[in-house]
Amino acid sequence: MDRRTFSRRMLAGGAAAAATGVTSLSLGAAAATSAELPPRTAPAGGVVRHLRMYAEKLPDGQLGYGFERGKASIPGPLIEINEGDTLHIEFENLTDVDASLHVHGVDYDIASDGTRLNRSHVGPGGTRTYTWRTHAPGRRKDGTWEPGSAGYWHYHDHVVGTDHGTGGIRRGLYGPVVVRRQGDILPDRTLTIVFNDMTINNRAGHEGPDFEATVGDRLEIVVITHGEYYHTFHIHGHRWADNRTGLLTGPDDPSRVIDNKICGPADSFGFQFIAGERAGAGAWMYHCHVQSHSDMGMAGLLLVRKPDGTIPGHEPHHASGGAEKGGAKGEPGGEEAAEHRH
Amino acid sequence: MDRRTFSRRMLAGGAAAAATGVTSLSLGAAAATSAELPPRTAPAGGVVRHLRMYAEKLPDGQLGYGFERGKASIPGPLIEINEGDTLHIEFENLTDVDASLHVHGVDYDIASDGTRLNRSHVGPGGTRTYTWRTHAPGRRKDGTWEPGSAGYWHYHDHVVGTDHGTGGIRRGLYGPVVVRRQGDILPDRTLTIVFNDMTINNRAGHEGPDFEATVGDRLEIVVITHGEYYHTFHIHGHRWADNRTGLLTGPDDPSRVIDNKICGPADSFGFQFIAGERAGAGAWMYHCHVQSHSDMGMAGLLLVRKPDGTIPGHEPHHASGGAEKGGAKGEPGGEEAAEHRH
Amino acid sequence: MDRRTFSRRMLAGGAAAAATGVTSLSLGAAAATSAELPPRTAPAGGVVRHLRMYAEKLPDGQLGYGFERGKASIPGPLIEINEGDTLHIEFENLTDVDASLHVHGVDYDIASDGTRLNRSHVGPGGTRTYTWRTHAPGRRKDGTWEPGSAGYWHYHDHVVGTDHGTGGIRRGLYGPVVVRRQGDILPDRTLTIVFNDMTINNRAGHEGPDFEATVGDRLEIVVITHGEYYHTFHIHGHRWADNRTGLLTGPDDPSRVIDNKICGPADSFGFQFIAGERAGAGAWMYHCHVQSHSDMGMAGLLLVRKPDGTIPGHEPHHASGGAEKGGAKGEPGGEEAAEHRH
Repeated sequence: MDRRTFSRRMLAGGAAAAATGVTSLSLGAAAATSAELPPRTAPAGGVVRHLRMYAEKLPDGQLGYGFERGKASIPGPLIEINEGDTLHIEFENLTDVDASLHVHGVDYDIASDGTRLNRSHVGPGGTRTYTWRTHAPGRRKDGTWEPGSAGYWHYHDHVVGTDHGTGGIRRGLYGPVVVRRQGDILPDRTLTIVFNDMTINNRAGHEGPDFEATVGDRLEIVVITHGEYYHTFHIHGHRWADNRTGLLTGPDDPSRVIDNKICGPADSFGFQFIAGERAGAGAWMYHCHVQSHSDMGMAGLLLVRKPDGTIPGHEPHHASGGAEKGGAKGEPGGEEAAEHRH
Repeated sequence: MDRRTFSRRMLAGGAAAAATGVTSLSLGAAAATSAELPPRTAPAGGVVRHLRMYAEKLPDGQLGYGFERGKASIPGPLIEINEGDTLHIEFENLTDVDASLHVHGVDYDIASDGTRLNRSHVGPGGTRTYTWRTHAPGRRKDGTWEPGSAGYWHYHDHVVGTDHGTGGIRRGLYGPVVVRRQGDILPDRTLTIVFNDMTINNRAGHEGPDFEATVGDRLEIVVITHGEYYHTFHIHGHRWADNRTGLLTGPDDPSRVIDNKICGPADSFGFQFIAGERAGAGAWMYHCHVQSHSDMGMAGLLLVRKPDGTIPGHEPHHASGGAEKGGAKGEPGGEEAAEHRH
Repeated sequence: MDRRTFSRRMLAGGAAAAATGVTSLSLGAAAATSAELPPRTAPAGGVVRHLRMYAEKLPDGQLGYGFERGKASIPGPLIEINEGDTLHIEFENLTDVDASLHVHGVDYDIASDGTRLNRSHVGPGGTRTYTWRTHAPGRRKDGTWEPGSAGYWHYHDHVVGTDHGTGGIRRGLYGPVVVRRQGDILPDRTLTIVFNDMTINNRAGHEGPDFEATVGDRLEIVVITHGEYYHTFHIHGHRWADNRTGLLTGPDDPSRVIDNKICGPADSFGFQFIAGERAGAGAWMYHCHVQSHSDMGMAGLLLVRKPDGTIPGHEPHHASGGAEKGGAKGEPGGEEAAEHRH
């Protein structure tokens, strides 16, 4: 599946953009892939978009969201917008059970709650339009400071299996949402890693997704947790700030810099970093650091290549018997569902 | 139980206030219930107060703290003070086992530790005065910056059942403490939600407390965890800053804005928000987002009404078979123990 | 084991310091032990150091790291450096299985990853030099702000038992790393508390380490979690800021002040505080606040003495039957492995 940019996909999917302001999303193939150039930044929002979203059964019996029929993936596609944007999402339920689209973080009224309680779910074959709004920070009439919508958020089903969507989430009905603030730095690529019960992105143990990059790429990882268990997300050789963007705002930002973070179901965070910065090329593991979880396969690789394409010390088909999967990603598996190139 | 303000209760309970500075607590019925008016703020502290606190057995065999005999509740009553205040709490143990009052966050010496180790517990029928002090932030003699006492804290038993109070906490001996800094915004109402083992405020599954508000109310939620399990607190349609107050200090505050937070036993945090802001009226669920926990009933409703009293899409006696309880709160149950009107 | 300062140990261990800039580590016996004097601060880094590190079997069958043969401890010795420093660690594996040295937070290339995947582990009897670099914060060529290496980090085995080092960590192969920024306040002593599965520092239940201090000492606690379980770290009578240093940067720092923090495997944080500040002398418990964990013995004492050496209300050999161990630390046990005097 060609997943390109959200705006392109929207057009490809037949959705009509009610406004056509230039956004980060339309800058897909920009040349700024190096940490040496001034980064692209998010524009002001304010665009109204119309989008289609489908929930459907995947060949293996799991469920997924997708922007097109027959193109569902786990995780569902990245929805990336700017503060001030509005999304009208025409959701069609192609599964044979009630399902919904519930979102975290953005503004919505009770009719877009995506719960059975509020009758905002969708029967088999039905459709419903969910409206998500976002806003920039600013001062309220009372003088207090209102936070903006920017953040690393996510959407998921709230209906399949139980009134909290336990069955839908378990089978794959979840995906990332990134809301950017004007001036926020844009990454070259966004990777989504969902710790869902004992899987990563619903893949079986020891098949956790690998991701590829070249030294100097500006990467963004969105980490979402779902299901029953707590996890700790760890990545080798890289680290981030434990704040809104994962980037320090400057020398006075008191945020802790970390490379390991505890998270529980429905927690989400994200961060940007330069692939291989002060670490160089390599097959860098990321994994849940709960020992039994990593031992059972909650691990994958960030394969950071030199500009010449090589990875020092890495043999493509190394089989260690452990969690680590070798292998340059010849035939792309589920990884592409979790990657978004800008 | 009429819980009104702490200062009124203290008088009603016969306690003598050694000082009578006007505090937020005496402003109970102020008119500022809208996000359009400048908010009331906390005054400077420095008041010395005397208070009575009782631990007693409840009719159902659980245990509770209360400001008056026969008025114990789960959670125990909100104790809300300002940095600089001192509390002398005459604690009387009306249960038939050793019990205590241990507090988090505020200043106390070892005689007020509330542990058996330090012989600061109380036998059946006994009394003991615990002294809690608080202080504003400031510079130490060594030039470093000392944090103030402001925070969302809590008290609990440390003796019943085990030397860590496991039995006392399980049966209900816990409550919230809010320490405010001069200038901190005061909410209209404070709601307390305690995830204690698999209950909310020790209520059976599917009976988690509902709370009511009107669009525009400035609400404050104090979230405390106790017992064995980790949880993730989530509320629909609203969000907060992951910092001291839950409100951003301004445009440079790097804190993450979240609507879901992992927490473990004795963790506590709080936040203020405007009911229905950018979301409108509705029956907004809050719940633990660990899937089995919400499915087993760790959920409740924030019923946000329009000014005319209606809640769009909400049927008072809707029975979904799920965690959601419909029903405007006709006959007040345990909810009132967890509400504090200012 | 005389653990003194790292620089002394390095010399004692026969390692050669390639540079000899004065660092915090050489100020061991400085007089500034009171909160009334301006604190010592960390100097600029930039030093290149050479260090030996051994992994070996302890008499009781556990494993430990040490700077000298026969001197391994659990946790392993504190490694404390300044941003800009480089460490070349000649690691010798004296155990009879493959082992490694994997570190969090600092800069290293793939050859120092300490994993079997990257062939950076060490066979029995073998040696390998791991290089850890650190850097100060600063502006990247692209104009963004790069975080520095300062933080409360840790090292551990990544090979014994499983490809994630589950067996090595369980048996004791872990230790603390503190990287300081120029100007960071230096403590009088650093204490390391590792919640490893259901133990503290691999000690059996109800034998958790006690630590001793005098009112006014500037203490630093490094808290690391390992293994399977989540925990909540709580200390009585004291608190800290939930940010990089545990100290507020000033009145505008929005960080939450806490005395309880959830943490999962490989999470680490640290904080400084003045022993007994606003609390006085006493036998102050610290413990995991998960109720069954504290009941099973995940607890210890911070024994804060008056200047005359006494501890109010504390009987040295009080046996409460609970988690609390009385006893001034007559014969030092494993505590010394977790203490570092500056």
